[in-house]
Amino acid sequence: MVAAEVMSCGGGAVRVRYRVQDNPLSEKGWHGMVKTKQIQVQTKGNCHVIDITDQVADEVTGSGVQAGVATLFNVGSTAGLTTTEYEPGLANYDLKAAFERIAPEAGHYEHEQTWHDDNGHAHVRASLLGPSLSVPFTDGRLTPGTWQQIILVDFDTRPRTRTVICQIIGE
Amino acid sequence: MVAAEVMSCGGGAVRVRYRVQDNPLSEKGWHGMVKTKQIQVQTKGNCHVIDITDQVADEVTGSGVQAGVATLFNVGSTAGLTTTEYEPGLANYDLKAAFERIAPEAGHYEHEQTWHDDNGHAHVRASLLGPSLSVPFTDGRLTPGTWQQIILVDFDTRPRTRTVICQIIGE
Amino acid sequence: MVAAEVMSCGGGAVRVRYRVQDNPLSEKGWHGMVKTKQIQVQTKGNCHVIDITDQVADEVTGSGVQAGVATLFNVGSTAGLTTTEYEPGLANYDLKAAFERIAPEAGHYEHEQTWHDDNGHAHVRASLLGPSLSVPFTDGRLTPGTWQQIILVDFDTRPRTRTVICQIIGE
Repeated sequence: MVAAEVMSCGGGAVRVRYRVQDNPLSEKGWHGMVKTKQIQVQTKGNCHVIDITDQVADEVTGSGVQAGVATLFNVGSTAGLTTTEYEPGLANYDLKAAFERIAPEAGHYEHEQTWHDDNGHAHVRASLLGPSLSVPFTDGRLTPGTWQQIILVDFDTRPRTRTVICQIIGE
Repeated sequence: MVAAEVMSCGGGAVRVRYRVQDNPLSEKGWHGMVKTKQIQVQTKGNCHVIDITDQVADEVTGSGVQAGVATLFNVGSTAGLTTTEYEPGLANYDLKAAFERIAPEAGHYEHEQTWHDDNGHAHVRASLLGPSLSVPFTDGRLTPGTWQQIILVDFDTRPRTRTVICQIIGE
Repeated sequence: MVAAEVMSCGGGAVRVRYRVQDNPLSEKGWHGMVKTKQIQVQTKGNCHVIDITDQVADEVTGSGVQAGVATLFNVGSTAGLTTTEYEPGLANYDLKAAFERIAPEAGHYEHEQTWHDDNGHAHVRASLLGPSLSVPFTDGRLTPGTWQQIILVDFDTRPRTRTVICQIIGE
């Protein structure tokens, strides 16, 4: 069922339009499912930005679930997930520069006193970016924009094999 | 069913109380639903902060779902979602100042070399803020606090019509 | 059912392996549930980092749900949620230093003009960290890594009793 309605809402300039996209299965009863998989990604570390959109899309397609949410969760505390336009400028330079401002690689970290290692900045950056991302899908397709890819950013100081949980809940 | 229990847990000063708020429907079997809609928002760009709480609340009410999660996802890579106390100081000045520290508008961005545009800072800010937000609701009402509004922040350098996916899963 | 497959995917060095971990209940039909509880946490404010992993794990265990997602949401606009390796260096020093760079405690905040209070930096930090976190679980166990704890960071300038919504959806 697809319907459309237009409404104005308070707050001045904000105009909001809704487009109804209920999944028809909802009207015939629930056929919900939970499917949990792991996506493993080889990284180079050091703020390596990796586009995992295709892997997540494959999981959605393979699940047979038509409408729902893909909950993505990076296992480990020195990498995180977000979206970006995946092109070389942002992926190789601009994101790294911002994280260098927030948590400089050469800064002092008490974490490194605890474990005598060198990745305090990686931990801080990962906590700020966050480990989880929730991506809705309908008609078996993810909803992000054409110029918006799902990325893992690995902040650690060495190559790692990363595990991203990809859990699909829907009907 | 509402029950209450009090427990102490390890870790020193941390005291944790639980308040059980199971939805009674759970005990009569699952009547789950997935409803996916789009909220469209007109923005002015340039770190425009827009309160979309009422629109999300309307979707929850309109869905007929009593308990579940509203997964919000901004389509596009130059805006993001979070919560704040929506008052003019934070919305018009303070949030913008922090993003200016993280990714200055006048800084150098390789992204702008790729596309010959001017919104490298907008991409970086949006990736750091993140595109998704998961907001639980019970009894048909969102759970955020009284002084906590759901906001979209548009970092792009021009007015945009933004689409926020609002997907409701619950029973 | 556990199966394993290996695939290469485009994008050069990225190698992705999937490990299938479907919950067997999915094959016998849906027994979904939504359970919403509150975790209350006493904090000291001022960037106090508190490990709430055990409390979330207890909710998952207590729910009887085997596979699904725990949606965590901090109620209020001066605290946020993420994960970290919970050890004294990161928890007591390094995270605070990064937030001080993003939104200095002694900076100027228009928010403080509005309300004549002193926590403008707390609001800005909380919006950037974000109020929600989505943590998948399977076999009744949360998926984060051994060195990855779920934390609440309270940025307010005084001790607070925080409420974190913990909503479990699954089967």
